[in-house]
Formats: sequence, C-alpha cells, structure tokens
Amino acid sequence: MLGAPVSPYGSRSKFDKVARFFRQGTNRPLEEGASFTPLHDSYGIITPSSLHYERHHAGVPTIDPATHTLTIHGLVDRPLAFTPEELKRLPSVSRIFFLECSGNSGSEWRRGGGESDVQRAHGLTSCSEWTGVSLSTLLHECGVQAAGTWLLAEGADPCKLSRSVPMAKAMKDVLVAYAQNGEPIRPEQGYPLRLIVPGWEGNINVKWLRRLKVLSGPAMTREETSKYTDLMADGSARQFTFEMDAKSLVTRPSGGDTLQGPGVYELTGIAWSGRGTVARVDVTTDGGNTWAPTELQNPVLPLAHTRFRWSWRWDGQEAVLASRCVDDTGYVQPTVAELVAVRGTNSQYHNNGIQMWKVASDGKITNGNAA
Amino acid sequence: MLGAPVSPYGSRSKFDKVARFFRQGTNRPLEEGASFTPLHDSYGIITPSSLHYERHHAGVPTIDPATHTLTIHGLVDRPLAFTPEELKRLPSVSRIFFLECSGNSGSEWRRGGGESDVQRAHGLTSCSEWTGVSLSTLLHECGVQAAGTWLLAEGADPCKLSRSVPMAKAMKDVLVAYAQNGEPIRPEQGYPLRLIVPGWEGNINVKWLRRLKVLSGPAMTREETSKYTDLMADGSARQFTFEMDAKSLVTRPSGGDTLQGPGVYELTGIAWSGRGTVARVDVTTDGGNTWAPTELQNPVLPLAHTRFRWSWRWDGQEAVLASRCVDDTGYVQPTVAELVAVRGTNSQYHNNGIQMWKVASDGKITNGNAA
Repeated sequence: MLGAPVSPYGSRSKFDKVARFFRQGTNRPLEEGASFTPLHDSYGIITPSSLHYERHHAGVPTIDPATHTLTIHGLVDRPLAFTPEELKRLPSVSRIFFLECSGNSGSEWRRGGGESDVQRAHGLTSCSEWTGVSLSTLLHECGVQAAGTWLLAEGADPCKLSRSVPMAKAMKDVLVAYAQNGEPIRPEQGYPLRLIVPGWEGNINVKWLRRLKVLSGPAMTREETSKYTDLMADGSARQFTFEMDAKSLVTRPSGGDTLQGPGVYELTGIAWSGRGTVARVDVTTDGGNTWAPTELQNPVLPLAHTRFRWSWRWDGQEAVLASRCVDDTGYVQPTVAELVAVRGTNSQYHNNGIQMWKVASDGKITNGNAA
Repeated sequence: MLGAPVSPYGSRSKFDKVARFFRQGTNRPLEEGASFTPLHDSYGIITPSSLHYERHHAGVPTIDPATHTLTIHGLVDRPLAFTPEELKRLPSVSRIFFLECSGNSGSEWRRGGGESDVQRAHGLTSCSEWTGVSLSTLLHECGVQAAGTWLLAEGADPCKLSRSVPMAKAMKDVLVAYAQNGEPIRPEQGYPLRLIVPGWEGNINVKWLRRLKVLSGPAMTREETSKYTDLMADGSARQFTFEMDAKSLVTRPSGGDTLQGPGVYELTGIAWSGRGTVARVDVTTDGGNTWAPTELQNPVLPLAHTRFRWSWRWDGQEAVLASRCVDDTGYVQPTVAELVAVRGTNSQYHNNGIQMWKVASDGKITNGNAA
C-alpha cells in the first residue's frame, strides 16, 4: 500500500504530542496569555515558528498586509509611511536571535521549584532566524533630528502595546522584520511586521508594528512603568532594564523525565546572553560543588541560543544537575540565591538564576530549586 | 475587541497563500511525486520544515516510533538495533545543511526556459538545522570489519528505497537525524529517522531509515542503476555522482514577479555547494556580459544555503538577471551551455547551470534561459 501523497504544507507526526503549553488564568482571559516553548523536546538552536513562545496582552489581531503601514514620524525631517511590500524592496538583513520574555522563569524566584518541568518554568525563550530591514535604513531615510534620542514603538493590537527604545540601540542593530525562519512572520509573532531588538527583553520587540515616533525622551508607557520594571526590596524600581542577562538551562534530561537505569546519558541544553556571545557553559551533577566544561555546538552566534552538550555516566545515585553560562563580557550566571540577595523578592522579572534538577535514585527527575 | 487567544501550535496568516507547489503527473500518482519549496517567498537560509521540498517514491509511510528500529548489520562484529529513544541518549550533533534533489532544475536542461518561476524550476532545494547522532558513533559501536567499505541504507517506505554509501563518507560527517529545525522530523522528511549525507544528492539521504548493512562494495540498487545515474552523449553513464556542485539562484525578483517601475530593488537569492563553502556570488543584470560581487549574509556555513544580496537600480530598460556561485574549492558555477557541452542532453540530473531571468521594459519577469 502506498503512503500519503505530497502536500502543500507539512505538519508534525500524529505520534508527536508535544506542543506549546498554556494556562487559562483565573483572573485573565487566554487572549492576555502566554504559551511556552517545549524546551525538553527541542533540538539544536532553531525554534520552529509554530512552537515559538507567545505572550500577548490583548490577543492576536488579524491584519491584512494590504491595508497595513508602518509610519515613522515625530522629530524627523520627512515623516514616511511604508507598506510591507515597500519594505521588502529595501536592503534586508537575516540574523539568528533569541527572544526571551523578561517574565520568563518568574516562578523560580519567589516560589522556587514551583514548576514541574523546563517548559512550564522556562519556556518563554525561543530562537529564530529573523529577516527584515535595518531600522537605521528607515530612520536615515526620514532624517532624525538632533533632539530625537528615543523612539516610541507601537503595535496594532487592540491594546496598542507600546514601548520606548533609545535611539542609540535603534541605530545599532534593530530590525523591522517581516519574516521568521524563512517564511512570513506568524500572526502570533507580529504579522506582518515586528520590531526586533536583539538581546533585549521580549516585550520591547513590538509585534504588529504600525508606528515609530521619534521623541526627545522615553514615552513612559504603561508597559515600562506599571509593568516591566523591577521593584527592589527598598521600594525603588529599576526601569529600562532592557538586556537579558546570560542564562542557561539543562533541557534534557530535565524535570518530568525518568532515567532508564544507570549508564551514559547525553546532558544537553541551551545558553544565551543579551549582552553578547556565550563563551562557556559548565555543568554540575552534584548541585554545584563541582563543575565541568561542556562542548558548544558551532556556530556560536551572538544574541542567539547556543546548544551545549556533555556526556554523563549516571551511577544510579541521587544527583542534582545544573548548568552555568559565562558570556564574552566575563559575566557569570548567578545562583537564584545570589540574585535574590541583590534584587530582593518584590519583582519576578529578569530571573537568570541557575536551575537545578534533582535526580532520584529511581531515575525520576524533579525541580531541584529550593522552595 | 480582543484578538485570538494563544494556541498549542502556530500556523501562517490566512493572508499568506504561498505554499509548496506540486503537480499531479499523468503517468504517476501523487504518492510518487515531488513538492517544491517556494523559493520566491523564502527568506534567510532556513527553510521552514512545512515548506521543505518533498520527493518520495511510494508515498509517506505512517510510522509509530515505538515500533521502529534502526538495524546495523553485515560486515560488523556486533550487529545492533537502536530505537529512536535509545539514539536520543547518545552524543548528538546539530548542523545546518542544504538538501537538493539531483533532479532539481531538470526542466532547464533539455527544454531551457520550460518553467515560469523559481519555485517550479528550482524548488527541490531546502536548508534545515538537522540534529541526530553521528553515524560514526554507531558504526564504532558495531565494529566495522576491514572488508566493510560500503553501506546499504534502506528506508521503511513501501518501496524500501535504498542506496549505497561509501564507508569513508559514512565515517566523515553522516548523521542519523531525528530532529529538523528544532522539533522531531516531519513524516514527509523521514520521521522518525533519516540518514543525512551532507552535500550529497537528496536521494541518498534515505528517509524512514530502518537498516544499514555494511558491505564490501556498492549494492547496485535500483536507485543507483536505472535512476540517479547520468547518461552521457556517447551512451556511457556517470554513476555515484554524489556531490551537488556549486549553484546559485536569484530568487527575488524572479520569474512571475512584476517590477513596479524604475528605482532601487534588492536583488537576493541563495547559493550553495556540496563540496564546501560558498566563497563568492556574483550577479549580472545584462545576461552575463558584466558581473558584480554581492554581499553574503553571515554566518556562511559549509554545505548550507548562503543568502546573497545586492542593491539594483533599475532604469526601466530590458535586463537579464542571473547569479554565479564560486565555492572555496575555486569551482565556478557554469552556464547551462557549458554544462551541455560536457554532459550532453541525455540526462537531466545535476543541472547546476546559471539561471537567467528576463526583465521586460514593463517590469514583467520571465524565464530567460534559451529554449
């Protein structure tokens, strides 16, 4: 008997059940929700677009690209509006970048060990090849005035999500992206246009981008005042904490897995830094008493997930697995305790603390972070 | 009104109609067919798995990974069978590689200009991040005997597609892959296991891999005797022409597009070589009289698609666009005429000739290859 015929667009095997996880909150609708990348069933450094984490504040708008424009105005000599088709005629750039929600791993801060597995605890990070136009190309075309030191970036979703971007970053490496992983951006990732701000917290990578206004200072929008600031122990708040600090995760084996008896296991995971390139990833199997360097998969790209690997011979005894990232600035990923000592427990954003996985003697793996 | 909620698995915008193209042949069913990557609507170097070209000889089998094994036997000291789960415990490798069917571009050989656009003419090439186990790891485990100089690789599809692989290549860089672009391989790409033979013609990258038999010579299977050999003008045949030679394509703008009046256009496309790394891509707008070097997008990876770009100011006159790849062995992509002069017209495999696109003064672009 012949198998199935060719098809216009492929899909996963019916035997593959793993997908994005999401939770119906008790106090908010799914439209104001998040879905989590299945990091335990992820491979290499590319996250398929269908499994890229989602986080939106008013649901996914349905946008016809034929009626959509990006307007650049404010402190510019020539305000301009671009259609997606016009942007595609301009010189383009493709780069592989991670995106991480600054709320990722929040559960492991104030209630450490609160999530059972790596997807639920840390699945708000993903990595794609983004293609678009350098924002500097568009800004040069508009002629930014000397007083224009910040940008307001606004989305076309129902809540008009908006964030302020410093002009220096905008001119350095920001993209107006129209494609992700080789095809047009998916609706839940910002179709037809998304601002990509490499290495910076997910929320500032404004989806469904429709407007950039050049300003002389930050706009102080809702998402950078009441949210996405980090409340310290003394009641002051860190604001504009854009960069995602160096971080890593052992993704396989990890919470929820059961080892099938003593023997050799590959221990693998991802590492990244919003400040540069991963220089080294160490792993421990004894809860951080001793560390061993891992192998990094080439190419190791700046501001992208990096895959690390290490062969582990499990002796059947209890063990505590974890990884620790060092980036090319020399920054070393801290423990959660070190992070809490500096930042307190009022905020849950920007948790890049080390994740422990506890292996029981029967092979069962659970969250090893102290509660 | 709120937008759509989060979802377990994303999909394209309903406004994006482009998908793989396939043709219902008059003398063969769709199960013995091919589908073509939409290269004109592709970006960067990653092809999304859903749009990776398909070519299968007896349809896509439905395989439950819980009942599937890969057996390695023949001239080995220890015949072994591996389940997909067992393979995932072993040291893994992730690499970005192109796959190209050796029949790709066949239409442009004997009936040049026969296809209207880049998808139909050249869409049997795609590029993914593949993850799996080095075949050398498995072969070392089995203990290949001194007489074992070739491997027979066999798939679990209804036709048991099989090909012979030299041991030197098997030991060098061949993978037994279980993941593509960050998730389990898609059924039409070989779920749950596929042999990845980097840089070599697509057909030898055996899908649904179930058996590797170590032999003292090639097995002379159907697919390397009656097919996938290159019949020369004198009636002799080139056999085991594994490597895909250096090639490039201007993908945008290309056949079927219409330029919207004089002005600046990005001219972009992909280049690759089965023998190494793309060293340079030149473009012409006058049918090959003059050439200009393009910019290559980093990272430029060996045995992978490489994205090239060039800014073109169209003056509104007739033009003929084309690209020419040079790889790091110094090999220069030939014209179709140069290829035919050497190989004749009895075969249609391994056409890596330069593709011309003719731009009319009204902006309409058609296939510019001489018929």
